[in-house]
Amino acid sequence: MREIHVIGIGAGDPDQLTLQAVRALRSTDVFFILDKGEAKADLTRLRRDMLDTHVPGGAYRVVEARDPERDRTAGGPAYSPAVGDWRSARADIYERMISEELGEDQTGAFLVWGDPALYDSTIGILEEILERGRVAFDYDVVPGISSVSALVARHRTGLNRVARPVQITTGRRLAEGFPEGVDDVVVMLDAHQSFRAYADQDIDIYWGAYIGTPDEILVSGPLAEAAPRIERLRAEARERKGWIMDTYLLRRGPAEG
Amino acid sequence: MREIHVIGIGAGDPDQLTLQAVRALRSTDVFFILDKGEAKADLTRLRRDMLDTHVPGGAYRVVEARDPERDRTAGGPAYSPAVGDWRSARADIYERMISEELGEDQTGAFLVWGDPALYDSTIGILEEILERGRVAFDYDVVPGISSVSALVARHRTGLNRVARPVQITTGRRLAEGFPEGVDDVVVMLDAHQSFRAYADQDIDIYWGAYIGTPDEILVSGPLAEAAPRIERLRAEARERKGWIMDTYLLRRGPAEG
Ligand SMILES: C[S@@+](CC[C@H](N)C(=O)[O-])C[C@H]1O[C@@H](n2cnc3c(N)ncnc32)[C@H](O)[C@@H]1O
Ligand SMILES: C[S@@+](CC[C@H](N)C(=O)[O-])C[C@H]1O[C@@H](n2cnc3c(N)ncnc32)[C@H](O)[C@@H]1O
Repeated sequence: MREIHVIGIGAGDPDQLTLQAVRALRSTDVFFILDKGEAKADLTRLRRDMLDTHVPGGAYRVVEARDPERDRTAGGPAYSPAVGDWRSARADIYERMISEELGEDQTGAFLVWGDPALYDSTIGILEEILERGRVAFDYDVVPGISSVSALVARHRTGLNRVARPVQITTGRRLAEGFPEGVDDVVVMLDAHQSFRAYADQDIDIYWGAYIGTPDEILVSGPLAEAAPRIERLRAEARERKGWIMDTYLLRRGPAEG
Repeated sequence: MREIHVIGIGAGDPDQLTLQAVRALRSTDVFFILDKGEAKADLTRLRRDMLDTHVPGGAYRVVEARDPERDRTAGGPAYSPAVGDWRSARADIYERMISEELGEDQTGAFLVWGDPALYDSTIGILEEILERGRVAFDYDVVPGISSVSALVARHRTGLNRVARPVQITTGRRLAEGFPEGVDDVVVMLDAHQSFRAYADQDIDIYWGAYIGTPDEILVSGPLAEAAPRIERLRAEARERKGWIMDTYLLRRGPAEG
């Protein structure tokens, strides 16, 4: 039976690999890597470096494929179907890679950024392939340190306040309104700095870009003061590197309650 | 200057330590361990085993203290003050341990279960001690794999569905009502199986107890069917071991949206 590991590799700091992830890397025959076709060569390089460091001897193969273009223009209600199409396109590619490149008794792996549980499609795609029933395999998931955990660790704060909830959401959702019933909100996948809409409220922000990498930038403080600084730093960094990854926690006052 | 590491050690599986955590363990002179005064000898043993495994040679000291009794009877609005009192009592103990047991140029560490960012008081306590200003130190936080990440990895599912939010909350909060604005809810610190109140709704549960340990129990499925099974397994396990740690994800239908 083919085996597949879905391995969370952390969100930028190669030292945030777990021992379990290292073991999984070492038991892998074939690594599947999707080229995002973007200016994210840095991220692919980081994966390659991890393999060089932790699987000395290099008794593995790397299979690369081209990521299907995702329809990023689809907004509003069209978002889900576009994701669906893209997921099926990706499932086609993964299915072919697994059946053509992985021997019946071999182990393959997908190296997933951060924690496979947060805004990542790999598990869903593998389930879709299994449902189709054309190739059989068993798989497991190795949890990783998410950019969310890394963010708050760098800021030396918690995700939640005592006995209170925290919500993790997207920039798109935050743009529709501050989530109900929570005062602590982590925002991912925000291309539009949706926090700006809340700069007149009593909110602290804990923001980080390229967390865990040599390019890491951290800013925290009252949103009204921090927002313009973040906007400027974000624009500069994006210009300089060609891409940006950032995440932030919004903490609405009063401080304790 | 005294240095302190707040190290997330994962939620049960010693292999879920990160390389960064291992490095931090090895750079520590004094480990501070609080005896919870409960039947959690297992958890203290796990910490001791980690040190034996990862810091061979044992060139470190372990300082143990007795955890102040927390007023667990305080419910409702009294919850926060009781936590506050308990936190200050704990801060007193930590402050004394740091000033009396850690040399000016030494490194100390607190080993925190799971991820220090989730329902853990260590960071808040260190901040309180720094504010008092009687002992100076610098500290950093090493993120860990939380029981939440471990739970969904074992169930091979994500925390959020595509483009949707997820909330992490407590059993106490869930008992007050299903959180607004989200259909994916992770519940921690639930001594009363608050999920039972929702068994008539279209909800799937992904439940886990003692995740990552040899005693791990996992149950998933439609809540109406799974709830009685979880109740039974939970009661049996609690009886057998004398204590239980469990976490679950509630996923309200429809499946995709
Ligand atoms: C597709 S999601 C994947 C998240 C990933 N699975 C995780 O656990 O962090 C990508 C988003 O994660 C966040 N992200 C990932 N890595 C990051 C990093 N090193 N610094 C800041 N944000 C990061 C950003 O919000 C980005 O838009
Ligand atoms: C005080 S909180 C600490 C959480 C911890 N910082 C973390 O990241 O998992 C304790 C709660 O975490 C959850 N928990 C911790 N370890 C667990 C495990 N191994 N299995 C299931 N639940 C666990 C339970 O909900 C428990 O009530």
